[in-house]
Amino acid sequence: MAAERLVVIGGDAAGMSAASQARRLKGPAELGITAFERGHFTSYSACGIPYWVGGDVAERDELIARTPEEHRARAIDLRMRTEVTEIDVAGQRVRALDRDSGETSWTGFDKLVIATGARPVRPALPGMDAPGVHGVQTLDDGQALLDSLNRAGAFRAEGPEGRRAVVVGAGYIGVEMAEAMLKRGFEVTVLNRGEQPMATLDPDMGRLVHDAMDGLGITTVNGAAVTAIRTGPDGRVRAVETADASYPADVVVLGIGVEPETTLARAVGLPVGPHGGLLTDLSMRVVGHDNIWAGGDCVEVLDLVAGRTRHIALGTHANKHGQIIGSNVGGGYGTFPGVVGTAVSKVCDLEIARTGLREKDARAVGLRFVTATIESTGRAGYYPGARPMTVKMLAEFRTGRLLGVQIVGRDGAAKRVDVAAVALTAGMTVEQMTALDLGYAPPFSPVWDPVLVAARKTVTALRRAGTA
Amino acid sequence: MAAERLVVIGGDAAGMSAASQARRLKGPAELGITAFERGHFTSYSACGIPYWVGGDVAERDELIARTPEEHRARAIDLRMRTEVTEIDVAGQRVRALDRDSGETSWTGFDKLVIATGARPVRPALPGMDAPGVHGVQTLDDGQALLDSLNRAGAFRAEGPEGRRAVVVGAGYIGVEMAEAMLKRGFEVTVLNRGEQPMATLDPDMGRLVHDAMDGLGITTVNGAAVTAIRTGPDGRVRAVETADASYPADVVVLGIGVEPETTLARAVGLPVGPHGGLLTDLSMRVVGHDNIWAGGDCVEVLDLVAGRTRHIALGTHANKHGQIIGSNVGGGYGTFPGVVGTAVSKVCDLEIARTGLREKDARAVGLRFVTATIESTGRAGYYPGARPMTVKMLAEFRTGRLLGVQIVGRDGAAKRVDVAAVALTAGMTVEQMTALDLGYAPPFSPVWDPVLVAARKTVTALRRAGTA
Repeated sequence: MAAERLVVIGGDAAGMSAASQARRLKGPAELGITAFERGHFTSYSACGIPYWVGGDVAERDELIARTPEEHRARAIDLRMRTEVTEIDVAGQRVRALDRDSGETSWTGFDKLVIATGARPVRPALPGMDAPGVHGVQTLDDGQALLDSLNRAGAFRAEGPEGRRAVVVGAGYIGVEMAEAMLKRGFEVTVLNRGEQPMATLDPDMGRLVHDAMDGLGITTVNGAAVTAIRTGPDGRVRAVETADASYPADVVVLGIGVEPETTLARAVGLPVGPHGGLLTDLSMRVVGHDNIWAGGDCVEVLDLVAGRTRHIALGTHANKHGQIIGSNVGGGYGTFPGVVGTAVSKVCDLEIARTGLREKDARAVGLRFVTATIESTGRAGYYPGARPMTVKMLAEFRTGRLLGVQIVGRDGAAKRVDVAAVALTAGMTVEQMTALDLGYAPPFSPVWDPVLVAARKTVTALRRAGTA
Repeated sequence: MAAERLVVIGGDAAGMSAASQARRLKGPAELGITAFERGHFTSYSACGIPYWVGGDVAERDELIARTPEEHRARAIDLRMRTEVTEIDVAGQRVRALDRDSGETSWTGFDKLVIATGARPVRPALPGMDAPGVHGVQTLDDGQALLDSLNRAGAFRAEGPEGRRAVVVGAGYIGVEMAEAMLKRGFEVTVLNRGEQPMATLDPDMGRLVHDAMDGLGITTVNGAAVTAIRTGPDGRVRAVETADASYPADVVVLGIGVEPETTLARAVGLPVGPHGGLLTDLSMRVVGHDNIWAGGDCVEVLDLVAGRTRHIALGTHANKHGQIIGSNVGGGYGTFPGVVGTAVSKVCDLEIARTGLREKDARAVGLRFVTATIESTGRAGYYPGARPMTVKMLAEFRTGRLLGVQIVGRDGAAKRVDVAAVALTAGMTVEQMTALDLGYAPPFSPVWDPVLVAARKTVTALRRAGTA
């Protein structure tokens, strides 16, 4: 019997996790695996790029979990710099273009994994492609930015010239890149279209991030929609323009977010959801297609709290998807039940975390809720290094079910959100949460953990609302 | 109508939380509150004593959450240095002894709260009461120890004399006091009766603590049962003796643990459990007594995983008990469903955490299980400061239900156990845990959180055991 043929499109987290897990379950005699990657790298941590740019991580290669050679050593036929340009669903084959030689060829499959990732949102504005304007989605992007920073540094004079960075966007990537540019010695201005930075938080919590960024010396301009990138006679970026103002810039970093890269899949009618991502079932099979799987940044995931799909580009989901796809493709079993929307980040020592629904998310899906916000510390108040931490909690009216948590604070703030993530997954009420047996010792928590304090205040809010 | 009379025995976390919460719900015209405390202090953090002794916390008073004066300002009749010596259940009154004047008097109650705490286990061995031998349960104990350290310091000569500390016991208090004494410049030897330090962990995890303590310069002697404290001509401690050896000591710290202080309650036949703690119902009422509540270190709590009661002396439980008792006494409503056995601690930068059942706990209640142990890091491997972390997980055979987690590691190890604490409370299986949406960003976690890695390996162990 000839080996079954698995084709994987995309050589980063989801695609190569799927290939590796399938290989773990089936040897080359049973399963042939061909993987296509259009770029130079495989299996790398895009989430680590801001820390490489900022200098916390010294070498690009530290971000690479597994090289092409390591994949090939596991009997995966990995074609680098080779872009799949067409999927022939009925014919069970893909056409690929070797980007160096320019040659194209068809490869047949019995099973197909689509892991094409996401592409940065790059608004069609004048000057957006000028030298000195950088995305930070790929290792290539990161390297280009670092080269640009070194070039800017070489021209540094007295005064601010040569060291003014403008970051467009104030989401996770935006704030992490603001930190990175600050660490590189730049004067940093963040242009944020929204009401407050970190639109993944409610504005009252985003305000805390804004204040902290102020304190760090990062200028954040809210309500700033970029209209153009102004360039100089040499073609390089000089400033970022909004309707109201012009912000001098020697380097511009785009942190505007990403959208699912599903061009190939849409061209052949594979189903996409309201956010442009591929739709899959619980086993990560593309809906309506028994032999095509999809995972990572190119799919939509079920939001278990909102009861509908979302698009979340995050390495931790991509790795889980790949693992599950690889199990199913390799004859094992795995499902991805969905997400609760957990995300953590930091700007210097300020930690930012969220899980579940924001106020507007809850409203959008017809949920009535109460909120409570508390301030506490990550350690016992008397323990050295105790710093303020703000926790906001949302619970459903009547049922008292937890709907979401947002945390902004210092040491120990971010990962505290995991308690809420598990409680959301389990469908706990905030009353149940008040009794949670969380770890207590003075270096790690006040005697009432901030999450418990928030749960208690939310219970009170429910009672006042005539419910609970 | 005369005010209802509430009497509280014990002025620390459980007792004063109960009094405060009752006062919040009912004013003095409705409810008179009398509280008796035999010591000098109210509402303090006993868990903070090692950090005060070690110098992290500069002043004793920082450990006091609320002073007697603050309680009195809230219309609580607080009698300090006054010890309740008898409960007259049928007559609804308590007899109290003023320890300064020697006078006794009876006080009537409609409702009674017993919050008598725990007392240190102090084996009846020769020399145990010698000057230089110290418990660390109360602020008075901590002050006596600090005075003793200062005295020892004053006699310091060249060489080790005057700065040798022996800590008896290697549980939470023992290891925290070992750190404290190290910080005070002492040479520290920990004498541990068990196989490994931290008997609240399985020995394989305790071994990691032992190795880390070695690395910190703390000498740990396992299997060392103390037989006597040897004193010098001046009556002060000179050495600690075991069957095999003699350990020179200028100061001895007892960290052997505590047992429920229920002398008063047992004298009048109130029900105690197998660990000597008072037995209560879910509303924290003493079983069989509608008008008597008990909480804090003097009660047994239901272990939700083992399905039977345990004794756990921990401020976080005591505060919850007090809150619940105060609500119920004050006409509100609250219940304490039980614990899952979460505890966290540290020795210098080594973090130690556990929740749920150890292997021997599971066996003791008739559970069959599998275990898995993994090593990971608290941050992405490439992020600065990523340090090893070991996670051990137990899951029930057949059902795959999580039974327990133990974590030993550095930065971010301790509070990670909270994820497991919530999962235990929710009765999750380890398979369900593999899909948990935990916070991921390189400074806070590898792309697979260590808890997820452990869950995955435990799933594999279940599969190999022919189950799951």
